[in-house]
Amino acid sequence: MQNFDFHNPTRVMFGKGQIAALAQLVPAGSRVLMLYGGGSIRNNGVYDEVKAALAGHTLLEFGGIEPNPTYETLMRAIALVRAENIDFLLAVGGGSVIDGTKFVAAGSLLEEDPWTIFEQRAANVQGALPFGAVLTLPATGSEMNSAAVVTRKATQEKRAFASRHVFPRFAVLDPTKTFTLPARQVGNGVVDAFVHVMEQYMTHPVDAKVQDRFAEGLLLTLIEEGPRTLAAPEDYDARANLMWTATLALNGLIGAGVPQDWSTHMIGHELTALYGLDHAQTLAVVLPSMLRVRREAKRAKLLQYAARVWDLREGDEDARIEAAIAKTEAFFESVGVPTKLSGYGLSREHVEPVLAALEAHQLTKLGEDRGVTLEVSRKVLELSV
Amino acid sequence: MQNFDFHNPTRVMFGKGQIAALAQLVPAGSRVLMLYGGGSIRNNGVYDEVKAALAGHTLLEFGGIEPNPTYETLMRAIALVRAENIDFLLAVGGGSVIDGTKFVAAGSLLEEDPWTIFEQRAANVQGALPFGAVLTLPATGSEMNSAAVVTRKATQEKRAFASRHVFPRFAVLDPTKTFTLPARQVGNGVVDAFVHVMEQYMTHPVDAKVQDRFAEGLLLTLIEEGPRTLAAPEDYDARANLMWTATLALNGLIGAGVPQDWSTHMIGHELTALYGLDHAQTLAVVLPSMLRVRREAKRAKLLQYAARVWDLREGDEDARIEAAIAKTEAFFESVGVPTKLSGYGLSREHVEPVLAALEAHQLTKLGEDRGVTLEVSRKVLELSV
Repeated sequence: MQNFDFHNPTRVMFGKGQIAALAQLVPAGSRVLMLYGGGSIRNNGVYDEVKAALAGHTLLEFGGIEPNPTYETLMRAIALVRAENIDFLLAVGGGSVIDGTKFVAAGSLLEEDPWTIFEQRAANVQGALPFGAVLTLPATGSEMNSAAVVTRKATQEKRAFASRHVFPRFAVLDPTKTFTLPARQVGNGVVDAFVHVMEQYMTHPVDAKVQDRFAEGLLLTLIEEGPRTLAAPEDYDARANLMWTATLALNGLIGAGVPQDWSTHMIGHELTALYGLDHAQTLAVVLPSMLRVRREAKRAKLLQYAARVWDLREGDEDARIEAAIAKTEAFFESVGVPTKLSGYGLSREHVEPVLAALEAHQLTKLGEDRGVTLEVSRKVLELSV
Repeated sequence: MQNFDFHNPTRVMFGKGQIAALAQLVPAGSRVLMLYGGGSIRNNGVYDEVKAALAGHTLLEFGGIEPNPTYETLMRAIALVRAENIDFLLAVGGGSVIDGTKFVAAGSLLEEDPWTIFEQRAANVQGALPFGAVLTLPATGSEMNSAAVVTRKATQEKRAFASRHVFPRFAVLDPTKTFTLPARQVGNGVVDAFVHVMEQYMTHPVDAKVQDRFAEGLLLTLIEEGPRTLAAPEDYDARANLMWTATLALNGLIGAGVPQDWSTHMIGHELTALYGLDHAQTLAVVLPSMLRVRREAKRAKLLQYAARVWDLREGDEDARIEAAIAKTEAFFESVGVPTKLSGYGLSREHVEPVLAALEAHQLTKLGEDRGVTLEVSRKVLELSV
């Protein structure tokens, strides 16, 4: 096991009716800005419940944060925070709203252009406005971690930052509020959480037994609960298991003390920036090819994955590995997420611009061993056509 | 899944050489009291490393905290804290030292007798001195939770309290510092962690898939790493896995959203108070009998445990359950912890005083369903002779 520093101070309020707890969770006397997305929260009851819970607080609103939240939109939120002397933020939505709120929380306190957060790897983030989250879409894990991804529309850049100052103070997770999610978002969420686990698990063994068992437990739960949720959208326990799994998939726990990959995410970000694929769609396209191309570097863990997650324990090793990857693909397809670029109207000609973007962003040595060179990324993308 | 409120703000610094991080972890300018036990830290290098790391701080010491820390001893530490205007505590040791430090942290701020913490179920704990922990014995999980158990010598009472104010600010876990532990303490730690998991897992199903998988992952790791550690005391990864497992066994995570039992612990506490058995020894004695006596209430989870932890998936259900319990017993014995009262020189005549103590302490309806009456406790203890 590698040395690690694990600290996750976010409080999770989980279950039916927990939005009412906002009345106590948000400090009395705060000037609160509620940030949200396209307005689905007005249809699923969340907006009304939040307003009711915060009836005793000064509450302003900023709607319209888009999927893959943009710097351009978030700068308008920062201007509002400053103009209205906001001192507490409340993100109400999915990962994009929460990521955007993290950027607003940190950016509002900076004198310089907040885009410098990315350029300086958050070294200039010395504090942030306190904020909480009400999660409506299980997927990214942003509700219980300290990372965020923001897109600059003008330059088509998708950049990430992390800082201990942007852990949510609390996260409210009410699974009933996910009953009305479109199937596409449910499927995306399942794939997103699955690949988050894989990025932290599918590397090389470092004898970290608990982290492996926990990662495998999350994968098995996604495999059980993803299809169950799609088949019965109002199954509370299926929704609850999915929601808690997605949170635990990226809250720092399973990644503590082990190598991490993240090359699938890096390539995926470029696909989203260039062609507008949903984040999870890019992961479903890249991961299976990445596993095939990187089979030797990941051999021991692929065999463990085949055995413990897919119960493939007999026969030729290479056949077991290929079967596990094929089952992974079939699982993504089963929750409605195509695993080839062709499924999104893309073809071989769309590969080169992705490689150019990776090169421009100096992403030419990715992965747990920095073994994902541009040449490897090319193989992966060509295999994904 | 049940609703839950999960919050664990303790920072974990894990790995070789992490004691040096104390220099940064303990706030500059603090007046620090280091609390420790019988002095083993002077032999394994921990004492010297702590002193070196805190060379820039004002550092006082309080040694001699006993296993099953006593109110009488801890009141002397509280007197020292007050006399010396201590403002930061550092527990250096195992669960007893950390539990004792929690009592000192909360008790030092109370005007009334700190024993009232137990009588008032910690309602009078409105704050506590900040403190950190350097763990030397993986077992209790106290280093990353907010609970403590203290014994009053004068009255042979063993009482517990929990308060969000007594989470350690940080916990330093260096597995190399456990290389020299006596085998008895290693075995005890393995059993203690195992039973912590069982108290939160072995109840009745509530469709909490992640919690179940995580609990099973911890049990499997203990089964793998306990004997490995005893066979090769300087195997770093075995020690590391054991240490991290024991912490995660009782940090609130696997118990969030599920029913919990704790009847084995309650009966065990009386055995320690009356006859001086080590805490883990009492658990090894009580748990197997508890599972046998409560077989029907726990039937579904016993079958799941048999299948997933012991790979018992074929044949008659009752035979599988009995085999899983027998394997549990054999595992405890394999790490050197006897599972019958006779193994500690006790016999049938020692049962009645335990029942009298349970009755005196109003512990007559224990367990996840309050089904462990005095009559059930009697059956459990008689089966454990």
